Amino acid sequence: MSDSAVKTILGADAVGHRAAVVGAGHTRFGTLDAGPRALLRSAVDEAFATVDRGVERSLVGEAFLATLGFGGWQIGNASAVLAEEAGLGGVPTTRIENACASGGSAIRAAVRAVESAGRGLVLVAGLEKMTDVSNARRRYWLGVSGDTEWERSAGLTFAGVYGLIAARYLSEHHVGPEALEEVAVKNHANGALNPKAQFQKPVTREQVRAAPRVADPLGLFDCCPVSDGAAALLLAPAATARQFTDTPVYIDGVGAGSDSLAVQERPELTRFGASRWAADEAFHAAGVSHSDISFLEVHDCFTIAELLALEDLGFAPPGGAGPLTLEGATRRDGRWPVNPDGGLKAKGHPIGATGVSQAYEVFLQLRGAAGPRQVPNAHHALTHNVGGAGATANVTIFSVG
Amino acid sequence: MSDSAVKTILGADAVGHRAAVVGAGHTRFGTLDAGPRALLRSAVDEAFATVDRGVERSLVGEAFLATLGFGGWQIGNASAVLAEEAGLGGVPTTRIENACASGGSAIRAAVRAVESAGRGLVLVAGLEKMTDVSNARRRYWLGVSGDTEWERSAGLTFAGVYGLIAARYLSEHHVGPEALEEVAVKNHANGALNPKAQFQKPVTREQVRAAPRVADPLGLFDCCPVSDGAAALLLAPAATARQFTDTPVYIDGVGAGSDSLAVQERPELTRFGASRWAADEAFHAAGVSHSDISFLEVHDCFTIAELLALEDLGFAPPGGAGPLTLEGATRRDGRWPVNPDGGLKAKGHPIGATGVSQAYEVFLQLRGAAGPRQVPNAHHALTHNVGGAGATANVTIFSVG
Repeated sequence: MSDSAVKTILGADAVGHRAAVVGAGHTRFGTLDAGPRALLRSAVDEAFATVDRGVERSLVGEAFLATLGFGGWQIGNASAVLAEEAGLGGVPTTRIENACASGGSAIRAAVRAVESAGRGLVLVAGLEKMTDVSNARRRYWLGVSGDTEWERSAGLTFAGVYGLIAARYLSEHHVGPEALEEVAVKNHANGALNPKAQFQKPVTREQVRAAPRVADPLGLFDCCPVSDGAAALLLAPAATARQFTDTPVYIDGVGAGSDSLAVQERPELTRFGASRWAADEAFHAAGVSHSDISFLEVHDCFTIAELLALEDLGFAPPGGAGPLTLEGATRRDGRWPVNPDGGLKAKGHPIGATGVSQAYEVFLQLRGAAGPRQVPNAHHALTHNVGGAGATANVTIFSVG
Repeated sequence: MSDSAVKTILGADAVGHRAAVVGAGHTRFGTLDAGPRALLRSAVDEAFATVDRGVERSLVGEAFLATLGFGGWQIGNASAVLAEEAGLGGVPTTRIENACASGGSAIRAAVRAVESAGRGLVLVAGLEKMTDVSNARRRYWLGVSGDTEWERSAGLTFAGVYGLIAARYLSEHHVGPEALEEVAVKNHANGALNPKAQFQKPVTREQVRAAPRVADPLGLFDCCPVSDGAAALLLAPAATARQFTDTPVYIDGVGAGSDSLAVQERPELTRFGASRWAADEAFHAAGVSHSDISFLEVHDCFTIAELLALEDLGFAPPGGAGPLTLEGATRRDGRWPVNPDGGLKAKGHPIGATGVSQAYEVFLQLRGAAGPRQVPNAHHALTHNVGGAGATANVTIFSVG
């Protein structure tokens, strides 16, 4: 599709605040004892508890659940479980599944629900319970979001796909693995300051380099872990958000894009068209530019994915994300802090929860409530959530004040 | 939630036409040779071909796929496959899964996307490929949308749940199984006139009564079949729909509701709260009343479900659906024709496709293009799509002219 056709479809003008996050909850990520229902309850209860002036559950008019249903605990109709556990019996509830981008896609749907319903609140929750299955089943479920017909039948895992992409990236740009290592070091350093992160331990470049290889050039510290966890947001109409809090976090732009499911069908390996599309739509809708963004939460399922994201989102030219990372621009005190919560890499990646978790971090940061990992003077933030190896993607732009 | 709270959330006023169906496609339902990708392509291509004045695919700005992913052909990220097969590379695409109500939920999401994007078209497709798996796997997949923790572990299948509901219904209302039999006879008679139906053969009351029992009082002819198939709709903004056709079919009201996943948690067995909620929202939003409805497409996964639907949707009081059915009011020439396409019962029930298929029938009927099964003078229609045994439900109200 041409750019002009897209502009026609998406509309020419930014619309301002589209919705506001007025509450947010988040379980610890990691290997947890709690089951799926308890995880949901915990995140949702916290989201309600964080609404500054309180809110009756009866004001919630719709709910969305982002989950892959990992392990098959409730493959069909799981959105009904969210309504039950949230104490929202009767309300419309919908499961959104776009693999690892499910959370971002659910936020997109929820923003529209807020706009459409007019006056109610909308609950978005993301959930995955990944550690309760055997290794054989885990391998199965980790693969279900990749191309089943070709890539999986060729034996490709996600680490394998991203390993190929990383090798290609290093070769195309004639660079070594230092930037990948730096992504791991930075995100582990951030995770060490996040009490809800799965890994709260810094690592050194030497440790990253010496770790066992998973899919060359990616080693153990280049890969996000398998995680349990849930996150939840309460969205209110922008116009009424101040009934609930003095510091609503606004959603100003929501973008999404897609690409072929199989990486082999794409013209290039080292750029994700879906991310680029999503960013174009989100920036256009929000009416802001890159220089307005205070910090980013990007989908670093593997360290290489953070470099791709910086380029696809327009924060660096092709090949430019490495230097940007190595010069420290993406550290918490850099020009564009990336993944101050530790990212998927250190915070963990419970599939359906991840996109919602990114927005949770934005909720804390833009309200100045992120504690020792606070990004100073943050006013705009961008989240970026990818499904599979770039087959679907979402970008959301937030603001405060 | 109280009724007044609901009114506050949903908004007090009907908004008129919210979107328009300008094209619709539908494969044959049944045991088909075609695989999932070919089914999608076929339904989507027909949807584009039915747009009277034609449409460029580049005008489609978003896509939604309703599917359970039966058999696990592509459990995660299947929405990317829709974008590929529809020739919509790059556009935002989202999988919506609410079990057997996935299609209705996807239409709800698509209507909001049309409103939100402002000027583009939105594609909704529903798909299931159910016959390509072994019997053991089929039993597994047929159960995944029920309550996994209690009902399935007690050995309850969906036929079992609906059999219990049917027994209770007959007992509560002190009636025999004649109305159930009449639902089967009527829907098979309608299916016999639908060239896309899985079963195109009339059956008699005697045949229905003599059929093997599945879950007493439900026999073989009380149960919908296992089906392959796909359906697709092209939605346009209501304001620009006449650029594409002189006879857009408008969507005026979209309602949804939920209930506990497990039937055992509900106060009564013979009414589905989710359907009642969905109907309330849809009627309210459309600003029409029951007397305005020309015909209905309801979720008759089992014959008992059609009786429940008539009552939950407000077309008959509790216990009144049997007499209404037996007096012929739901036949094609009755006051409120129900399932003129044969319903899930005779047309077939490829899970994710069903809600979209119901809207396809509305598209034909409201444009006077349903051939020998045409409902005379149809101007408003209602579709009703249920997930699981009533855990989720959608109601959509359409109009023409």
